[in-house]
Amino acid sequence: MTQTVVAGPVQAHPPALPSQRIERFLEQNPRLPTPFLVVDLDVVAEHYRRLRAALPRATVYYAVKANPDPAVLSLLIGLGCNLDVASLGEIDLCLRLGARAEQLSYGNTIKKEADLNRATRLGVATVTADCAAELDKIVRAAPASTVLIRLATNGSGADWPLSRKFGCTPQECLTLARRAARAGHRVGVGFHVGSQQHDVHAWDEPLATTAWIADCLAAQGIPLEVVNLGGGLPSSHLAPTPDVAAYGEAITAAIDRHLSPYPSIHYMVEPGRFLVGDAGVIRTEVVLVSRRDGEPRRWVYLDVGLFNGLTETAEEAIRYRIRCAERGSPAGLTERGEPTEPVVLAGPTCDSLDVLYERSSCELPLDLRAGDRLDLLATGAYTTTYSSVWFNGFEPLRAHHLPASGLSPAAAPHGSWS
Amino acid sequence: MTQTVVAGPVQAHPPALPSQRIERFLEQNPRLPTPFLVVDLDVVAEHYRRLRAALPRATVYYAVKANPDPAVLSLLIGLGCNLDVASLGEIDLCLRLGARAEQLSYGNTIKKEADLNRATRLGVATVTADCAAELDKIVRAAPASTVLIRLATNGSGADWPLSRKFGCTPQECLTLARRAARAGHRVGVGFHVGSQQHDVHAWDEPLATTAWIADCLAAQGIPLEVVNLGGGLPSSHLAPTPDVAAYGEAITAAIDRHLSPYPSIHYMVEPGRFLVGDAGVIRTEVVLVSRRDGEPRRWVYLDVGLFNGLTETAEEAIRYRIRCAERGSPAGLTERGEPTEPVVLAGPTCDSLDVLYERSSCELPLDLRAGDRLDLLATGAYTTTYSSVWFNGFEPLRAHHLPASGLSPAAAPHGSWS
Repeated sequence: MTQTVVAGPVQAHPPALPSQRIERFLEQNPRLPTPFLVVDLDVVAEHYRRLRAALPRATVYYAVKANPDPAVLSLLIGLGCNLDVASLGEIDLCLRLGARAEQLSYGNTIKKEADLNRATRLGVATVTADCAAELDKIVRAAPASTVLIRLATNGSGADWPLSRKFGCTPQECLTLARRAARAGHRVGVGFHVGSQQHDVHAWDEPLATTAWIADCLAAQGIPLEVVNLGGGLPSSHLAPTPDVAAYGEAITAAIDRHLSPYPSIHYMVEPGRFLVGDAGVIRTEVVLVSRRDGEPRRWVYLDVGLFNGLTETAEEAIRYRIRCAERGSPAGLTERGEPTEPVVLAGPTCDSLDVLYERSSCELPLDLRAGDRLDLLATGAYTTTYSSVWFNGFEPLRAHHLPASGLSPAAAPHGSWS
Repeated sequence: MTQTVVAGPVQAHPPALPSQRIERFLEQNPRLPTPFLVVDLDVVAEHYRRLRAALPRATVYYAVKANPDPAVLSLLIGLGCNLDVASLGEIDLCLRLGARAEQLSYGNTIKKEADLNRATRLGVATVTADCAAELDKIVRAAPASTVLIRLATNGSGADWPLSRKFGCTPQECLTLARRAARAGHRVGVGFHVGSQQHDVHAWDEPLATTAWIADCLAAQGIPLEVVNLGGGLPSSHLAPTPDVAAYGEAITAAIDRHLSPYPSIHYMVEPGRFLVGDAGVIRTEVVLVSRRDGEPRRWVYLDVGLFNGLTETAEEAIRYRIRCAERGSPAGLTERGEPTEPVVLAGPTCDSLDVLYERSSCELPLDLRAGDRLDLLATGAYTTTYSSVWFNGFEPLRAHHLPASGLSPAAAPHGSWS
């Protein structure tokens, strides 16, 4: 069970720059009211293709919560991508946009029984649990479903914090899987290594645990039919990460190492950030640059903040790359020889919590002033959907979508196993 | 400048219970879909009257951000209450609901110059700054305005954290006030002692500083015309606080102690939480109760969480009182002799951050189960407006308003000084 891989760090690849189409959009719309997000759907499609190439064995379930915009969902549904949904609201939206119910995995471990009932009536047949009480609901309300039992992981190596909110121990997982199988369900195991995961080997330990569970189940004649590899694949934020191909290789090797005795297992992967993060850029305006007595750094206040798009800067967990819109060269994020200095970055509300980067350093030009525009790169995930409805009277983050070019209109779904 | 008050702690008063009208609404609507907030507008009106009685010297400016629902705003505008606004969005809403522009104070220290321009054209004539760059904008865009310079405070004694995002040193405040006066503005000083402030004496030190500034300005022939006492008056959350009358007494005594040489100063007070917090109750449903191996406490998952109303539980800053809807007696928040035990409380999303109370203890009945309903008391402030637009496919927190009874239709505005 504890066979683990020992390997050196995988080299980071250069971070993705905004696409040419986004650069053109920003150039052609220099005075568009800020803040806004612009998403290039070609980049979403390209990342979907890259992930499928990197991890051909797994069926892709897009984590809708990362960016539920109908433009993004329609594109991915059109490409045959399956969908990981967190609620009835997301289920209804995906079905309305043309997804088939069997493409959906209801992956939230916290579901009202009435919602499970309705999802089942709609045809959703893959559900997740991590405790006995949730499994009880599933046995009652979703009797023909495939049940994925979620293992806890420690989240080590990930930027976005994992709490003990989700997942169970290997022993509990085994107990729950047995109960589900006895109640007539097909069973699987799932886990999540933490969002924006830097370590390509983070999947190894949970896959070793999964193999132990598969062995125990097999000894009782219960096949482990599905393994959900979860999310964790990164966007191009400030701290560099390896290329998706390196993740694919490491995960494939870990599967071969631990689960080769079970060749009929279906693998799922649930990218959210990876598919949409790099596809988006937030353009924002500097509202105020303030230097105060006794403060070694200037404070730079933007028109976007924690409550209208940048929730993931909470506790400075996700560190976006930032460039000066008028002065950053497309070849790099630093300024063209202009002097910079570290600043504190904050949002526009009257809320003290609305500070983006204070502990971490953020370098901006010395002559930055109100009215200058900044771009926050790789911000296509977890921005619009986190926005507050109207806190401080600021509108939720607007989004513009650049339509996908040259899509084949009826792409076939791939690898659906349900 | 450093004359301070030495006084023992002020006794806490028993926390407010939901109004009879809210209790009746909840009784008569036992199956209303959760989560929802219900607000009793009579309680808002009553708190407004209590504050005016406790602090008759100050003009009340409601901090719109606390709850910008048109029902709340219309009530307060009808009562003659002035308004503290954070943005053009809030200004437009207040004017649309019948407020006069001179009732508004544009209190955000972070304003686009274009927004200042528009606010000025609309007639808004009280604005705030805490640094030279913001004052420059005001001098250009709001030349006839009264300018309040915001002093930094340390936020000691408050539940909601204060960062160094706002405010300047006394010396900077003096410099800015002089510059504003020389540019032809009437000048004032403002500060904020931190939200949900437990210490009734927290206003003493900034008022002593204000007196020092008033003396320095007077020596140069510049009158200090306005002092903004800010917010900080509490709602009835878990940690008990004194009654508003005790705050009124302590603040009045501090004004008398420090600023009696300046009897013509106009005082402003900016309650948000105090006016609307106790007026609201959130009803929520238990979605899941989970006991896991190795976890000493059960995890209780609700259908309301950090992203659809309870943002103020971030870092467990604000601790709401919670009762079991079916079993809590109106006389108290504990159960009727039923055994309870501490639990971890979490929200319904797939986000690890969506944990409400884990460090702090929260006691709930041993036999609590999915489908039970809980009430979160004193949740009328900073809930609906903080909700995310659709994170995880969950709708923003719905609100029901119980209309005010017996309002005189044309209450006169009070104490407008501008």
